[in-house]
Amino acid sequence: MQDMITVVVDAMGGDNAPGEIIKGAVLTVQERKDIKVVLTGDEDTLRKGLSEYDYDKERLQIVHAPEIITNCEAPVMAIRRKKNSSIVVALNMVKNKEADAFVSAGSTGAVLAGGQLIVGRIGGVERPPLAPLIPTMNGVSLLIDCGANVDARSSHLVQFAKMGSIYMENVLGIKNPRVAIVNIGAEEEKGNLLVKETFPLLKNCTDINFIGSIEAREIPNGAADVIVCEAFVGNVILKLYEGLGTALIKKVKTGLMSTTRSKLGALLVKPALKETFKTFDATKYGGAPLLGLNGLVVKTHGNAKSNEVHNSILQCVTFTEQNINEKIRNNLNKNENE
Amino acid sequence: MQDMITVVVDAMGGDNAPGEIIKGAVLTVQERKDIKVVLTGDEDTLRKGLSEYDYDKERLQIVHAPEIITNCEAPVMAIRRKKNSSIVVALNMVKNKEADAFVSAGSTGAVLAGGQLIVGRIGGVERPPLAPLIPTMNGVSLLIDCGANVDARSSHLVQFAKMGSIYMENVLGIKNPRVAIVNIGAEEEKGNLLVKETFPLLKNCTDINFIGSIEAREIPNGAADVIVCEAFVGNVILKLYEGLGTALIKKVKTGLMSTTRSKLGALLVKPALKETFKTFDATKYGGAPLLGLNGLVVKTHGNAKSNEVHNSILQCVTFTEQNINEKIRNNLNKNENE
Repeated sequence: MQDMITVVVDAMGGDNAPGEIIKGAVLTVQERKDIKVVLTGDEDTLRKGLSEYDYDKERLQIVHAPEIITNCEAPVMAIRRKKNSSIVVALNMVKNKEADAFVSAGSTGAVLAGGQLIVGRIGGVERPPLAPLIPTMNGVSLLIDCGANVDARSSHLVQFAKMGSIYMENVLGIKNPRVAIVNIGAEEEKGNLLVKETFPLLKNCTDINFIGSIEAREIPNGAADVIVCEAFVGNVILKLYEGLGTALIKKVKTGLMSTTRSKLGALLVKPALKETFKTFDATKYGGAPLLGLNGLVVKTHGNAKSNEVHNSILQCVTFTEQNINEKIRNNLNKNENE
Repeated sequence: MQDMITVVVDAMGGDNAPGEIIKGAVLTVQERKDIKVVLTGDEDTLRKGLSEYDYDKERLQIVHAPEIITNCEAPVMAIRRKKNSSIVVALNMVKNKEADAFVSAGSTGAVLAGGQLIVGRIGGVERPPLAPLIPTMNGVSLLIDCGANVDARSSHLVQFAKMGSIYMENVLGIKNPRVAIVNIGAEEEKGNLLVKETFPLLKNCTDINFIGSIEAREIPNGAADVIVCEAFVGNVILKLYEGLGTALIKKVKTGLMSTTRSKLGALLVKPALKETFKTFDATKYGGAPLLGLNGLVVKTHGNAKSNEVHNSILQCVTFTEQNINEKIRNNLNKNENE
């Protein structure tokens, strides 16, 4: 029999909390017998929310956490002061091995800061990267790092490449994932100082499948599985992806509604377009893991609905079962001893 | 009567050279009596190409330039060695005041390097930025810098903001253009070292309308008119814009063709969608100017067709008539003396 995996979920984080978070948690324990979910948040509110559902009470529990960290608060300060917040209480459970993983749709800054301050880094990890999956024409790619720690060094980027490679191979099941570094041209001599310094280091890594530079134009085509960059650039890519995607879909909708003729056509094309846009959506894979910590911390979208919360919890199970942290620890320490 | 403006065009640069370049030049002199166009390239080839058209031969001339600089060549080396290339011959005409402006769809690297090496910078300009217009939900924004000089300093970014502001106000006619710096959050304390250093400097500029940070998500919404960033980030934004736009439109087309029902609907929605996508296309504004040079150099898309070449030439006229370089010179020197 498989071991039970415990995932603690921030029930108060995100635009749709606690309703959609609760729903996602219920969905998970109804569907999977090998998962225990703990919700952190205001006990009364959560009890009321849960009362609508029928579920195994042994495997879906509440831990009272009356405080909430908002998006407007300075992350480090909030983590230090709000000891009874849904985020801090949950992170302490991961730290104390009462939970294997933590999922939050709340403040990205607080989740990142808390992950590092409370759960802590795996020995050898210089900087834990936030690594969301982004949709491409033929699947998804891992964009690593999109976190809050900017001005990275080349040694950080090399670790990102290794951790990202392990994640894509073991959690997504992509054999020998192609690793590329974001650059402004395909040639090795192109790039800023950081990229020029990192490129030869990546080329020398024997444990990753480094394919060279990737121009931003090629990212949506799925030209690499692991896309390495420092957090400022990663953040720009991630947010432009979201913004431009939303803008273009809005444009298409406006176009469809612009004439009588197109309105008629819209009725016919809508189901097909809906299916198409679904293939260009990464939420079915869950949230973005903060890699390299002594436990798993997953940041899911602020606007996540029950299904994305559910998928983020499932992602934690694969991560834990595949011993990703053990693999990261072994890989980084092996390289240090080389 | 208006003075005649002379624009020299690289007839051998780009995917559609010389055919579409010639066509764009002919279109221009047919439409406007105040513009003279000079084409640089192989004389025989151009003469043959031009023989198909009827145009005022006084205002559309050829200057023989038998060499071609390709995209594969190292830019600085190519500019130094290929003195008889269509790019170098044209840039020398701008340098010698035989032409007011230069348009090329050829090697971006060579155009940028040649612009700096041959035409030279306006006194006071530290670094000439390449500033393309990108489409937004309600018009266009100027993305400055997308050039080849990475690892910029804060003083460069301040100059980009000023030059971009002058360009948008005088060439695009946007009064008091909103200037923002690309950042990973809206707050002043966010960002990497460069952004943190630049932010207060921009805030202190009295001659621009600085509105603060812009997250990449907001760029497609047209949240600022002048978007300031260093070239590596600008390049990523520009290329992701192109790549993601193409990918999503391809997705929509696949969706429309996926079922019998949607195929029928596609016939009805196509004209409207085509109109919609046209509004999300910046080529009607011309190419990207390399600002801050002693003359105007415009880089248009490698795949530019006659219409974009035509628009790029027209853009040079507005630029020259509005004395943009004079305004840049005055602004930067005024600030130096403050």
